[in-house]
Amino acid sequence: MSIPADTAAVSDEQQAREDELVRRVLDSFADTADPRLQQIMHAAVRHLHAFLRDVRLTEREWKQGIDFLTAVGHITDDRRQEFILLSDTLGASMQTIAINNEAYADATEATVFGPFFVEDAPHVELGGDIAGDAPGQPCWVEGTVRDTEGNAVADARIEVWEADEDGFYDVQYGDDRVAGRAHLFSDRDGSFRFWAVTPTPYPIPHDGPVGAMLAATGRSPMRASHLHFMVSAPGLRTLVTHIFVRGDELLSSDSVFGVKDSLVKDFVEQPSGAPTPDGRDLTGATWSRTRFDIVLAPADAHETGDGT
Amino acid sequence: MSIPADTAAVSDEQQAREDELVRRVLDSFADTADPRLQQIMHAAVRHLHAFLRDVRLTEREWKQGIDFLTAVGHITDDRRQEFILLSDTLGASMQTIAINNEAYADATEATVFGPFFVEDAPHVELGGDIAGDAPGQPCWVEGTVRDTEGNAVADARIEVWEADEDGFYDVQYGDDRVAGRAHLFSDRDGSFRFWAVTPTPYPIPHDGPVGAMLAATGRSPMRASHLHFMVSAPGLRTLVTHIFVRGDELLSSDSVFGVKDSLVKDFVEQPSGAPTPDGRDLTGATWSRTRFDIVLAPADAHETGDGT
Repeated sequence: MSIPADTAAVSDEQQAREDELVRRVLDSFADTADPRLQQIMHAAVRHLHAFLRDVRLTEREWKQGIDFLTAVGHITDDRRQEFILLSDTLGASMQTIAINNEAYADATEATVFGPFFVEDAPHVELGGDIAGDAPGQPCWVEGTVRDTEGNAVADARIEVWEADEDGFYDVQYGDDRVAGRAHLFSDRDGSFRFWAVTPTPYPIPHDGPVGAMLAATGRSPMRASHLHFMVSAPGLRTLVTHIFVRGDELLSSDSVFGVKDSLVKDFVEQPSGAPTPDGRDLTGATWSRTRFDIVLAPADAHETGDGT
Repeated sequence: MSIPADTAAVSDEQQAREDELVRRVLDSFADTADPRLQQIMHAAVRHLHAFLRDVRLTEREWKQGIDFLTAVGHITDDRRQEFILLSDTLGASMQTIAINNEAYADATEATVFGPFFVEDAPHVELGGDIAGDAPGQPCWVEGTVRDTEGNAVADARIEVWEADEDGFYDVQYGDDRVAGRAHLFSDRDGSFRFWAVTPTPYPIPHDGPVGAMLAATGRSPMRASHLHFMVSAPGLRTLVTHIFVRGDELLSSDSVFGVKDSLVKDFVEQPSGAPTPDGRDLTGATWSRTRFDIVLAPADAHETGDGT
């Protein structure tokens, strides 16, 4: 595979010098013991050099790039991962998810995992409330888990997590409260149902170099409103995804490119006093409801391609 | 410009999903006010995504990449710049130099600047010694500075710096000594001459993540022996380069890809007691001598292409 650089404007001698340098850098990896590592380094070198040559990067711009990466490194600590934020905002995280969750029949699409999942979230029964004391409008979520043959998947483990109506996850509260997250298991017929809060938008951390990049490029740090799911069952590919709220004006500008059309769902607003599916008394509050029917690919779907 | 990804093995639906994501990321930069920044971000996104797709990066490898960059960021401080080291060892620094110092007639080739230049190095007269108390074999260096028309360049400012025979620059001594660096000016006929020490090889810092990358890929951290030059004169393109020692076994594996054939020079060993060019008494020590004839491009050579 060769990557032609956009060097039409330079002389033959100049192009030969640049080509020769790429060749020498590639050759330097000849003794790499691990063939996969060699493949990755070769591709990284090819694309890095093609990038430099395509844009004819100036030395001042190179220095700005070094300074930017240095700032990303220096703000990163145990609590904040600016490199992941950078990967997210360049769509690299989402592309990696796409590559590793190949399209398979009508299997539900995956999206980014995000930094807010927590292991050992509490268990709720079917129909229970994952909100805890997270503030927000109550939201009834129901659906089914099936495989790509249409068979119900009983006892699938469904992890759910979300921000509250102020845009904060419980891990951002600054105390030990657990709210807006839980796990439950699908019923014998594959169905599931629970109460949550209606998703609301929030910004990714944007007070660092990635935020400066978004500002300089006229981009918003906001994430479209969403509810996270991770669904797993024996023999099936674990699905990490979100559902999004139809009509959310941020759907087309989600800062981490997590939105897929197939994951946008109707969250139907219910008037104050409307009877709830399980008879819960919401003391006159408005609420919403949505439906998410989940289809899990076989566990080995990434090996068997598109199932055709 | 499109960069075809090596996705022949994936289904049409999968390829369409990956293409669509790239398109959405590119579109997100539509409101970038600075057209150059937009061009750079577009090219960075295209090559980053093409890299991920070419190698079909796994989620585990993505995490390893994030961890590697995090380690590069964390070892970087005011004294150590691991991102520059990474750029150097991937040939990106050298490619940037090549792009910004386009081939022009017989102008001397540029190479990497390196981290060891210091402003305000002492002045020495023509024929003076730049070594100071840097240990090493004495080396007589002489040559001329000319423009691409063959005219002598008088009063060109020539900065010279180098490691001592133990592989250390003065700034690595841990005290305030200045050694192995100076500036001088070419004579009225463009000629110059000075004493230095014969260049010896040394490793780049390799106790960090870049060193680990070199080790994992079977690469050496050693730099080929060299003597740094920066030559400037009004109306001419400033030249940053090295000269290398013919016969050095590291010429073909220089860890930062700084070597150009045209910059490899004969350093001719002189026996003990051989008379010196300026009558200096070396008290019986062996010494070496070399010649470097420098040709400077016009200052606007990067605008006028190859001069044809």
